[in-house]
Amino acid sequence: MTPLQVATAYHEAWTSKDLDRAMTYVADDIVCDAPAGRIEGAEAYRAFMAPFVEMLLGSQLWAAFGDDEHAVVVYDTRTTLVESGPGAEYVTVRNGQITYSRFVFDRLPFAAARQAAAARQAAAARQAAGVAP
Amino acid sequence: MTPLQVATAYHEAWTSKDLDRAMTYVADDIVCDAPAGRIEGAEAYRAFMAPFVEMLLGSQLWAAFGDDEHAVVVYDTRTTLVESGPGAEYVTVRNGQITYSRFVFDRLPFAAARQAAAARQAAAARQAAGVAP
Repeated sequence: MTPLQVATAYHEAWTSKDLDRAMTYVADDIVCDAPAGRIEGAEAYRAFMAPFVEMLLGSQLWAAFGDDEHAVVVYDTRTTLVESGPGAEYVTVRNGQITYSRFVFDRLPFAAARQAAAARQAAAARQAAGVAP
Repeated sequence: MTPLQVATAYHEAWTSKDLDRAMTYVADDIVCDAPAGRIEGAEAYRAFMAPFVEMLLGSQLWAAFGDDEHAVVVYDTRTTLVESGPGAEYVTVRNGQITYSRFVFDRLPFAAARQAAAARQAAAARQAAGVAP
């Protein structure tokens, strides 16, 4: 498989919520530079992806390119938190597996949605405790 | 020029802080879907890019791919606000100019840096007004 084929097969798997299959394309010693920092190893990478895959409602692949060693995918995601959360992944592939990934996406709408949800929960708790109308 | 050549020439121009040259690769009726929303027209696009180019200290192109109609660039930026602010742009090119751009980057560190700067300014103002030690 070419790097492009690996990247798109990986993408197809996780956007189908099949993280087991997705991880077959991820090297044990993967290094991923994500917005929040570096993730090292397949176990940590899976732990990073799992909550996102869990809340995924849909996705659309916009672009996929590759050469002998690398590939890039650009896509949109729809999650329970954010209606449109575009992402780009630039990966290095060796022996059919992703060994390095540079992950680009905008954390801001996710942070805002989480903050709004926490505020709603706090308001509901205050109301339940009788300290707010 | 191929879409890839246009995208990389555009990229090289704006990361050299030459926005005039960069705009020669941008169609008058460009549509750009950026993290904060849609930008329409070259004037609005320039107004969107100018503050970023202004604070740009350096950049590194990680990847550039293209086909007959599209190109994608993935890169890092260093600005006065954020030490590392990776971005990805997936563009449509017609007649040597970018007609559509999908811009992906993480706004969170920029928002955090602006918030921290505002807090520092407010603290300095309070101190200057004698209402804080």
